[in-house]
Amino acid sequence: MIRQHSRGRHQRARRAYNTPPKEAPAQSANGKPNIIRPIYQKPSFSRFKNDDLKLKIAVLGGLEEVGRNCTLFEYDGDIILVDMGLQFPEEDMPGIDYIIPNIGYLKGKEKNIRGVIITHAHYDHIGGIPHLIPALGYPPIYGLPLTNAIIKKRQEDYRGLRPLNIHNINVADKLQLGNFELEFFHLNHNIPDSMGVVIRTPEGVVVHTGDWKFDYQPAGEQPADLQRIASIGSQGVLALLSDSTNASSPGHQISESEIRTNLDDIIAKAPGRIIIGTFSSLLSRIKQIIEISEKLGKVVALDGFSMKSNVAIAKELNYMRFSPKTLIDLNRTRDYPDNKVVIVCTGAQGEKNASLMRIASGEHRLIELTPGDTVVFSSSVIPGNERTVQRLKDTLFRKGAEVIHYQMMDVHAGGHAKADDVKLMIRLLSPKYFIPIEGNHFLLHYNAKVAESMGFPKENIFIADNGQVMEFFRGAGQLTRTKLPADYVFVDGLGVSDETNIVLRDRQVLAEDGMIVVIATVDSKTGKLVQNPDIISRGFVFLKENKELIEDLRHRVKKLVTDSDPLSWADTNNIRNKIRDYVGQFLFSKTEKRPMVLPVVIEV
Amino acid sequence: MIRQHSRGRHQRARRAYNTPPKEAPAQSANGKPNIIRPIYQKPSFSRFKNDDLKLKIAVLGGLEEVGRNCTLFEYDGDIILVDMGLQFPEEDMPGIDYIIPNIGYLKGKEKNIRGVIITHAHYDHIGGIPHLIPALGYPPIYGLPLTNAIIKKRQEDYRGLRPLNIHNINVADKLQLGNFELEFFHLNHNIPDSMGVVIRTPEGVVVHTGDWKFDYQPAGEQPADLQRIASIGSQGVLALLSDSTNASSPGHQISESEIRTNLDDIIAKAPGRIIIGTFSSLLSRIKQIIEISEKLGKVVALDGFSMKSNVAIAKELNYMRFSPKTLIDLNRTRDYPDNKVVIVCTGAQGEKNASLMRIASGEHRLIELTPGDTVVFSSSVIPGNERTVQRLKDTLFRKGAEVIHYQMMDVHAGGHAKADDVKLMIRLLSPKYFIPIEGNHFLLHYNAKVAESMGFPKENIFIADNGQVMEFFRGAGQLTRTKLPADYVFVDGLGVSDETNIVLRDRQVLAEDGMIVVIATVDSKTGKLVQNPDIISRGFVFLKENKELIEDLRHRVKKLVTDSDPLSWADTNNIRNKIRDYVGQFLFSKTEKRPMVLPVVIEV
Repeated sequence: MIRQHSRGRHQRARRAYNTPPKEAPAQSANGKPNIIRPIYQKPSFSRFKNDDLKLKIAVLGGLEEVGRNCTLFEYDGDIILVDMGLQFPEEDMPGIDYIIPNIGYLKGKEKNIRGVIITHAHYDHIGGIPHLIPALGYPPIYGLPLTNAIIKKRQEDYRGLRPLNIHNINVADKLQLGNFELEFFHLNHNIPDSMGVVIRTPEGVVVHTGDWKFDYQPAGEQPADLQRIASIGSQGVLALLSDSTNASSPGHQISESEIRTNLDDIIAKAPGRIIIGTFSSLLSRIKQIIEISEKLGKVVALDGFSMKSNVAIAKELNYMRFSPKTLIDLNRTRDYPDNKVVIVCTGAQGEKNASLMRIASGEHRLIELTPGDTVVFSSSVIPGNERTVQRLKDTLFRKGAEVIHYQMMDVHAGGHAKADDVKLMIRLLSPKYFIPIEGNHFLLHYNAKVAESMGFPKENIFIADNGQVMEFFRGAGQLTRTKLPADYVFVDGLGVSDETNIVLRDRQVLAEDGMIVVIATVDSKTGKLVQNPDIISRGFVFLKENKELIEDLRHRVKKLVTDSDPLSWADTNNIRNKIRDYVGQFLFSKTEKRPMVLPVVIEV
Repeated sequence: MIRQHSRGRHQRARRAYNTPPKEAPAQSANGKPNIIRPIYQKPSFSRFKNDDLKLKIAVLGGLEEVGRNCTLFEYDGDIILVDMGLQFPEEDMPGIDYIIPNIGYLKGKEKNIRGVIITHAHYDHIGGIPHLIPALGYPPIYGLPLTNAIIKKRQEDYRGLRPLNIHNINVADKLQLGNFELEFFHLNHNIPDSMGVVIRTPEGVVVHTGDWKFDYQPAGEQPADLQRIASIGSQGVLALLSDSTNASSPGHQISESEIRTNLDDIIAKAPGRIIIGTFSSLLSRIKQIIEISEKLGKVVALDGFSMKSNVAIAKELNYMRFSPKTLIDLNRTRDYPDNKVVIVCTGAQGEKNASLMRIASGEHRLIELTPGDTVVFSSSVIPGNERTVQRLKDTLFRKGAEVIHYQMMDVHAGGHAKADDVKLMIRLLSPKYFIPIEGNHFLLHYNAKVAESMGFPKENIFIADNGQVMEFFRGAGQLTRTKLPADYVFVDGLGVSDETNIVLRDRQVLAEDGMIVVIATVDSKTGKLVQNPDIISRGFVFLKENKELIEDLRHRVKKLVTDSDPLSWADTNNIRNKIRDYVGQFLFSKTEKRPMVLPVVIEV
């Protein structure tokens, strides 16, 4: 059973919050003292006056998808945000680069934003920053050093922006942001410097996990700080917002050290070159590959701009340690025997133009596949990419390479908590409310089921939609019906737009059945056709094979226009609509297709 | 080690083949005697004269995909085909219904086709029949009774075709088709009447498995006939063509009887209605659901046209036995308590318009989801459908239903051999050559690896492409470089076409960046613009947000035409190309998008 929190406990928590901490600042992990930054302190007289004194939580992105994570906390005019990510587009969003959180609610409230906390440096947590931070007036960003370094590096891709107002924190720091007092704790994921956030509010303590797993034997970083988490829990937690990505899988997430054994085996036994495809942001994995290779006397070449820059950052900040001789330039791999060469590259999801795709298609500037090469897919396939990855594997096999995927040998460890990890987190923190985040709706449900299965009261689990407001007041939480704006905001070559839906819908129609342009040139005075209608189609039917159909259509459009009352030409919309309806119906009756019909009337 | 076949053995096999069988016809499973149908007997003098006397095998479809299975066997002017399936389109083939095998090689050879053998009634083995059999001049089709009944039912959807020349065989039958003597053996899959084909040729015995698994305890049908397979193997097998779909998974495929326990549990424990989504062709599963429900005193309603007709056929042919009271009409489910109702429907892959999709979206005529309903996904997700299925699950959860997928509880048994099944088949048949079929290229490789792992000589494994000819002569096989036509043949609302590629490419371009139509109306005599160019775009940019861009473009096109030499108007192609190039470059420089540019020049 979950321990129920009494109102008294939360009141104690509130009192404790109002009193400045008496204990001397503890030593943080790296020996520096904790810091409290009193950036903004709300005058206390405003307390308990009105509805603003409820704690509001709304997840702006990440409750209906994997990606564009962003959670808003608001109390008495103070706002903080946790994470600001992007989501990669769905397959029905052609031409879209990515989707970012909707910040419509924050318009006019920019001044209230006390800070943006970033839990770790993955794109689904940092990718919205270049677009949203300027729109929000450059509020301060707080993150651990690696996180911030990667954010800053990425920001360089966006010219003409002001420098970010970004601050390194230490995991042992405390941070005062208006009514919110923040602490942090170390968690494992598959990038170093991943952290959970403890948000002490006047209404109680809320914990946001970011992406996490418990790794008792991580590779080259500290295990998650279980004692710290337990201690937070023993002080009373109002609500836990926790990662749902992998909660539907039973058991504990596999440890990075188990992967190490696997990877070690593959790298040691490969008869020739090894080409490992992974994400440029999967720094824990890349770190392991470099370390194993060094131990085996092999050299490593990185391919992919962001991978190189991420490794450079991690090396500079001492998250990776290896001999300068181990990392070589890609154009130097030929100076080494094949069985001494490890190439780590991007594109394991079959991304167009990524390194692995170019290697496979023979378009890579420096790497040509030969029999004897071993290609390792060291990341799981993101739903939606399966077929592309299958085709990539086909091509690699055709080139004579050996292909190893995680299905065959476990070279993949998820970075996300599985069911038993979720249970342990809940036991350690004993939250009163459980709020599954980070996942499609069905993943939130599965995460909720994990909590329910251990007796967590169902009514204290909030499965919310993006933007749906949760309110907490005097120890009681409520999933309200209020929804902040949460519609898709698209980013493409042209910039940011939340009005792209109509364009996307057009693209979907065009993709499905193509289009047909019908051009009627008429005399503006008489309304009579000057010449036969022109008909152009693309993506609809193969015109050469369907000449008759098109001739028939041309004839019918001619008749339609000729038969129309010339008076109706006063309104060209009228005749255009007539043509559109008529042509659409005619083509459907003949082909069962519904191409987009574009009627053009030219008056001369 | 694999036993190597001596030439002598194959010559014995050939002799044996030339001699009419002496033994009295054995009794077949259902008590009828075997039948030999001497449909066509090639005169023997033509033997050993030329290259035609090699045995040719070419897989026309199914070596680069899961689907459109079709294998050609040719010897001395005699041709037989095994299976004639369809493939569902890839995600980059919008508007395509499906893809069928390319029969280009058979043009002019229609008279040589002695028969088409169908191994079982799944669409990836029968789906090409309505389109290809007429084109081939209605050659005779041979299949087991359930297979044929489903083929004939499906044929009714295609009006105006001649009746099929289709013949029921019994699994114990022998069939003489020109130079080929055929036998069959029972295998398990997830539809009854699945069989392997033994093709006795003058060059030796070839075995084609169709889709298969070994199920030692199948649900309501016979286990695969291991003794028969062993006996075929002991007589010497030249080549084995075997299913690759699941060969990359270790171990044995799970038995349908294990699934039964799982399904039983789910159906017994569900607190309210159960809605089970599956394939209409997964008859073994549907059979189990009906039997379990009957045993538990529940009623079953089927939803989906093909599911109903398949069950009707299976019931009529005695493949399913249940009380007439168990199966009820969908509109009668309300007459029963919720916990007595099981609904089996199509759409577990998230197919548009399928039953489960309509139930989820609230558009179903008869079924409205309510909390308490349990929705079971009883089929694995086909690669490419993952996101659609995720969204379907989201919707179901939102409606308050419980959702059970095979990841959570194994309600799915694959119908395909896993690695250990493949090994057993190879040991039983001891083929000289191993030819992985039915799968993407990488799946064929994994299947080959299974054989290699047990010592099968690598040079005797043929990983071919669609259409690639394998030749067998005097016991020796060769994977030649000859390729029969194997390009995609598309089927859509308009019929069959292998020239749809250009239309598809257009659709892809349209889907990615949309299109822009630029219309210049010019005086045919002077070549001067009569009015400002018209510009229409769809799926490109949101016009209201980009008025400036369009105005700029209009202005530039005007200038381009005005500046052009009027003499060049003799060739309107010239100015059209100019506009296309110019507009394309201009828009890319401004937007990094490459919409399809359609320049139209109207001369008045």
